Amino acid sequence: MPELVLGIDIGGTNSRYGLVSREGEVLHESNLPTSSVASADEFFQLLQLELESSPLKNQIMAVGVGAPSANYHTGCIEYAPNLSWGDVIPFRAIYQKYYDQPFCLTNDANGAAMGEKLFGGAKEMNDFVMVTLGTGLGGGLFVEGNLLHGYGGFAGEMGHVIVNPNGRQCACGRRGCLETYLSATGIKRTAFKMLGANTEKSLLRTIQYEKLTSKIIAEAALEDDFIAKKAFDYTGKILGMNLANLALQLSPEAFFLFGGLVEAGDLLVEPTRRYMREYMLPQYANSVQILVSELQNRNAAILGSAALAWEAYDSN
Amino acid sequence: MPELVLGIDIGGTNSRYGLVSREGEVLHESNLPTSSVASADEFFQLLQLELESSPLKNQIMAVGVGAPSANYHTGCIEYAPNLSWGDVIPFRAIYQKYYDQPFCLTNDANGAAMGEKLFGGAKEMNDFVMVTLGTGLGGGLFVEGNLLHGYGGFAGEMGHVIVNPNGRQCACGRRGCLETYLSATGIKRTAFKMLGANTEKSLLRTIQYEKLTSKIIAEAALEDDFIAKKAFDYTGKILGMNLANLALQLSPEAFFLFGGLVEAGDLLVEPTRRYMREYMLPQYANSVQILVSELQNRNAAILGSAALAWEAYDSN
Repeated sequence: MPELVLGIDIGGTNSRYGLVSREGEVLHESNLPTSSVASADEFFQLLQLELESSPLKNQIMAVGVGAPSANYHTGCIEYAPNLSWGDVIPFRAIYQKYYDQPFCLTNDANGAAMGEKLFGGAKEMNDFVMVTLGTGLGGGLFVEGNLLHGYGGFAGEMGHVIVNPNGRQCACGRRGCLETYLSATGIKRTAFKMLGANTEKSLLRTIQYEKLTSKIIAEAALEDDFIAKKAFDYTGKILGMNLANLALQLSPEAFFLFGGLVEAGDLLVEPTRRYMREYMLPQYANSVQILVSELQNRNAAILGSAALAWEAYDSN
Repeated sequence: MPELVLGIDIGGTNSRYGLVSREGEVLHESNLPTSSVASADEFFQLLQLELESSPLKNQIMAVGVGAPSANYHTGCIEYAPNLSWGDVIPFRAIYQKYYDQPFCLTNDANGAAMGEKLFGGAKEMNDFVMVTLGTGLGGGLFVEGNLLHGYGGFAGEMGHVIVNPNGRQCACGRRGCLETYLSATGIKRTAFKMLGANTEKSLLRTIQYEKLTSKIIAEAALEDDFIAKKAFDYTGKILGMNLANLALQLSPEAFFLFGGLVEAGDLLVEPTRRYMREYMLPQYANSVQILVSELQNRNAAILGSAALAWEAYDSN
């Protein structure tokens, strides 16, 4: 019987979990409700009930959890805006009431980075950065072979790096956070600003703000829509410039781009590479790669948290 | 006979070296010319000649070198603007013709970070950042107990992080690099822009650009000069905001400030702390300290390179 791990990805509405082999094969996967469940305790009870009936249950060697606002050091989920289980949820402590396998909790971007290392394009790399461009913006930093948590446990929180103190309003209450530009909502805001600033015809002029998505902008760009193309170019500029800056701090081998926004492919990746070179100190301009995550279009959330579990198992 | 190391700090005009104990005591120190010496080979020959007459020469266990534009991985000094010994100087290879002790070459800010760790305020810290505010701006990153070099070997190159792509001209040929704001020259440029933008009386209005120094600005600020105080506040704002951003990436325990600009003390440190808190994600606002380097007003250049030597000796 091969050893397996349980990977859990906590989402605001639903969570997903899966049983994953060392090679990254997902042997079983399923959903659990999050928002309709009253507490983390109840969540683990439901999970136990489901796994009870699985023939694979005795093969689970470790458990990894990717969650928003998770603190690796404390094992708590702290002030996650989309979770209703309390302000500071002692997730690890609750886990230990139900399981005794090795456990790792960290944020989803860190999970994605670990997934890239174990199952994706970073198997041979020791220094790389995972950039998750989805609803929000997240980062996972690998440094000299290890996932970086830092002293306070919040390393890689790049979504709230301020690029312009007079810039766009952010949900965090401040202005100009990177996430207000580099996310599915960010590119939508960019497109709307450009619709206001320019007079060119655009397919996007027929769509209301609430209905516009990054996918629609990508489709318009592929049909040569001026505003849509300009929005991707601007997004790539902000991303490229900030990756150049981060490259100067960390000197990584590569940046991996992951998430909904990356489904646009070269619409995003080409300008990001171009602007990173442009804004990089010239002697290092070609020293850092920008790659699309190999978890893209795979079962990334489960693979990421499963990778955390394998890491917890191996270092136990 | 106690074990000693040789620490060498390569400067554009002159270099300094010293023999340093494990406790950070400098037992002997001296200067060597740099600009009037034709090559790194000749430099090491001069050094050997000097050390030949020292009664301590047989106690040297390792050698550490801090130099501008030094690449830790290759052992080369690469395209250092102020060094005339060639574009790519194979410093380690030349060293090995003259010495066989363990050797470490890295840039001066990394040396300062290692000095802080071994002899300064970071003895008990594993995650901290050294920020050197002198003629230029440099950074040395300690991550999980180790000095971070990164894949390309240039980690911590924060002087050329771009904060405003339409900002001040930088010697590197680009615009808006952090160093054009955060350095001795940077605060002078800030003061001159403010003299142009404002009408208040100022002691600085009697001083020509070529003669103004950060020390004069500090003295004026202590005499309550409006422009001088404003220049320090602005410098602290740029520094504080960028340290908040870097804190989100690395989650360090502390930032150590070091260098000529830090001699102004609270004129710089107070606004830096205030703005870092202001621009930090609120839940982490008080989680990272800003401290003045304990190498400040000590023999920092020699202590830094000596610390590199001790590290090389211990890991050999």
